[in-house]
Amino acid sequence: MVQQKEMSSGVEWRIRVGDGSSETLVPEVAGVASRVWLGLKKMIAGFGFTVWRFLEKAWDLGADDPRKMIHCLKVGIALTVVCLFYYMRPLYDGVGGNAMWAIMTVVVVFENTVGTTVSKCLNRVFGTFLAGFLAVGVHWVADHSGEKFEPLIIGVSVFLLASAATFSRFIPTVKARFDYGTMIFILTFSLVTVSGYRVDKLFDLAHQRISTIIIGCSLCIFASMFVCPIWAGGELYNLINRNMDKLANSLDGYAAEYYNQSEEEAHKKLVGYKCVLNSKATEESLANWARWEPAHGRFNFRHPWKQYLKIGAAMRSCAYCIEALNGCINSGNQDSKFMKKYLSSSCLKVSSSSSSVIKELAKIIKTMTKSSIIDLLVGEMNSAVEDLQNDLKSLSGLFNPPEAETPENDTKPEKTLMSTASIPLMGLISVVTFACLLMEIASRIEAVVEEVEELANLAGFQCKSKQNQASTKIGPADELNDEDAMKTLEKA
Amino acid sequence: MVQQKEMSSGVEWRIRVGDGSSETLVPEVAGVASRVWLGLKKMIAGFGFTVWRFLEKAWDLGADDPRKMIHCLKVGIALTVVCLFYYMRPLYDGVGGNAMWAIMTVVVVFENTVGTTVSKCLNRVFGTFLAGFLAVGVHWVADHSGEKFEPLIIGVSVFLLASAATFSRFIPTVKARFDYGTMIFILTFSLVTVSGYRVDKLFDLAHQRISTIIIGCSLCIFASMFVCPIWAGGELYNLINRNMDKLANSLDGYAAEYYNQSEEEAHKKLVGYKCVLNSKATEESLANWARWEPAHGRFNFRHPWKQYLKIGAAMRSCAYCIEALNGCINSGNQDSKFMKKYLSSSCLKVSSSSSSVIKELAKIIKTMTKSSIIDLLVGEMNSAVEDLQNDLKSLSGLFNPPEAETPENDTKPEKTLMSTASIPLMGLISVVTFACLLMEIASRIEAVVEEVEELANLAGFQCKSKQNQASTKIGPADELNDEDAMKTLEKA
Repeated sequence: MVQQKEMSSGVEWRIRVGDGSSETLVPEVAGVASRVWLGLKKMIAGFGFTVWRFLEKAWDLGADDPRKMIHCLKVGIALTVVCLFYYMRPLYDGVGGNAMWAIMTVVVVFENTVGTTVSKCLNRVFGTFLAGFLAVGVHWVADHSGEKFEPLIIGVSVFLLASAATFSRFIPTVKARFDYGTMIFILTFSLVTVSGYRVDKLFDLAHQRISTIIIGCSLCIFASMFVCPIWAGGELYNLINRNMDKLANSLDGYAAEYYNQSEEEAHKKLVGYKCVLNSKATEESLANWARWEPAHGRFNFRHPWKQYLKIGAAMRSCAYCIEALNGCINSGNQDSKFMKKYLSSSCLKVSSSSSSVIKELAKIIKTMTKSSIIDLLVGEMNSAVEDLQNDLKSLSGLFNPPEAETPENDTKPEKTLMSTASIPLMGLISVVTFACLLMEIASRIEAVVEEVEELANLAGFQCKSKQNQASTKIGPADELNDEDAMKTLEKA
Repeated sequence: MVQQKEMSSGVEWRIRVGDGSSETLVPEVAGVASRVWLGLKKMIAGFGFTVWRFLEKAWDLGADDPRKMIHCLKVGIALTVVCLFYYMRPLYDGVGGNAMWAIMTVVVVFENTVGTTVSKCLNRVFGTFLAGFLAVGVHWVADHSGEKFEPLIIGVSVFLLASAATFSRFIPTVKARFDYGTMIFILTFSLVTVSGYRVDKLFDLAHQRISTIIIGCSLCIFASMFVCPIWAGGELYNLINRNMDKLANSLDGYAAEYYNQSEEEAHKKLVGYKCVLNSKATEESLANWARWEPAHGRFNFRHPWKQYLKIGAAMRSCAYCIEALNGCINSGNQDSKFMKKYLSSSCLKVSSSSSSVIKELAKIIKTMTKSSIIDLLVGEMNSAVEDLQNDLKSLSGLFNPPEAETPENDTKPEKTLMSTASIPLMGLISVVTFACLLMEIASRIEAVVEEVEELANLAGFQCKSKQNQASTKIGPADELNDEDAMKTLEKA
């Protein structure tokens, strides 16, 4: 409905603008009026157009991730339910005018992921409880120290605790986990001490606040956990998986682009690694929320979420090298075609073997089973790196004819063909750099492998059934089993 | 006081543990009691020790940046002042029991930097105002549509607006600037519609809330802006400056480390570039807050803060290459010493000229004046890159004796000496990669130069006085003038 209206105003705008420009020949007074009218219409139409564009963007956002829409509906329903609490007489008598606190709790605490909601709820409850407890104590002391000292004690205690709590928010550990709780602590402490000074029925107030907050929190936790839940841990897990796939694709893509294989196809994949470069902050906050989540799906309560951060960091260090490769490709216009071709097979082998290592790592994480072939793939990658090193070594033979006739180089016919011609070393530079960066990437991938293996140990990933391990060590059958397992998992 | 207590309990702990272990030979009942007692003491002491360590860390944090301590004191004072508002009878009558909202405003809105505080205040005021306005409208409609429809209309409106507002928080622009305002909007709208249903004196309520919130906001804005202010813009400016210095130092450091010059000195500087890699999130949030800040110091209201983000991104792309250099150095054990020496002077020249370009850029930003020598420095850097390229080219002469006798190579005596010997190309690889990455860094620095020049244009940096420009184009006199300018600026 709203969108249709906006649409029609957008159309109207285009028509009216045409009308306006033809009216400028009318006498002056009418002209001023019409111009004002025109300006007004333009402004409204412009506003309508902006709103329309905004709605379009919003629609795309919602269509992109329907879970966001579901979250919005959940918030709407939760808030309406809390309002019902307030409408109903019996509850009104029970929690009093403080039912406001339940509404506030829902608005402030209900977040997108389960972990965030749980963490905010616990922070809110414990912050309120601790502050209430302390405030009652301070109030009791102030009450027993005479009328003169009462405001002084309250003022000084508010000042000291507010300063200390604010300071604690600067400490990284507190900031990451208890920021919200600290804020609620200051708020509750000030409110209780100050209003205790007036109202003088502190325990009633404390009881009411705590009970309404617990009602709001339970509702939020229930809604976020049992109605289409979005788990921070699951998001982190998916992010790492996605980034791993992107890294593997980028690696393939760059090698293919450099060696001019299938340019159009490669181009789409290239930018993938940039996501890896920029996902540090997201990973950290997700890992931070994930630790508050109870066991869910395939993750138990003490799932080693921190290890995902380490994997992310190791992947990022690969991505830095890919970014440097990028520069290499752009400046590599003066490469000698021959050199490029000479190294292309071994370079492509390194890039494909290292991307298949990453893909296997992604599979380990996706299926949550230890892989029997990862060591083999790493070995393959290392031997590909060695081959590349040998090819580079044999290149020196091209420049030093007396060394060129070593037996290991006999297999390559182009070599002897070129050894007499002069090759400009200049054309070699970016080829060599490319090869060197590929080798560096391979060595950094080994660090990722280590982190993933650490994760497999910490999280207790199972080995595949012994039968599988015994019958097919690496063969295509095992490969198929893996894919079957993945498909069943994806369906589930 | 607290710290001393903790200290003594820590000492006590160590002594008592000794006592306890010698008591295990005493009869059983006494043994159990003593063990419980011991366990309890251990627990308390352990807790004390943790608290002590925590306090020590907190002290370091405070000593590191005294402005944080000042901020804490400011929050404490502001909160105490608001409590005074509440103690004073006349004000109590004026703003009523809603004085609570003033306290809440101070606690929630008062943030570390001026920009954050201002943005939160504006968000809070406009969110409250807009929501109050809408809620009164909805309430009026509900009032005039009969008792049956009243709760229905209110419920549906709460549901729709809460869902829509929650959804808008997912839109990146809204998330960055109006996240808090949207939350306040939902909160106020629900509170006003629901309590309007009961209290039936909506305008009084709205008036009270708005006035208390404005009191709280004014206090916060006043305190954050006029008492030892911390400007988000200034922080961003300092961060970019600091990162530029670190980048220049890292560049110098790596070149020095690679060529084994002054290892101890170099090592401290190396890690600097990692700050550049990780500062994206900080930069973005600071730039986001900075746009809310009024003119202050050397920055006017519409200072192009976004441009700093672009400079940061360009610097980061340099840092990626330095990270790749890092890998190069670690794997460069098998370099031929001769090759390294052969290229060392030109490599060091590239790194020193590019780091001096960065230093000059840092100076442009620090002094906020356009530099007359930046083009010259960039030219110098480019010619250093060309020299390096030529050296690399001439290397090919080493491998191709017939080409070695070209006239441009006559100046280097080592060359003819080596042209007859065989050089393992393997030892060349990391040297060439190092050189290639240095050239890539130089080309990325040019991107930084462009962004800084764009900043200079957007922010209207002044040229140095024409006299200076005319008399000394580059000479040491101009250099001195720059340093003088910086010193005066630093003093100011």
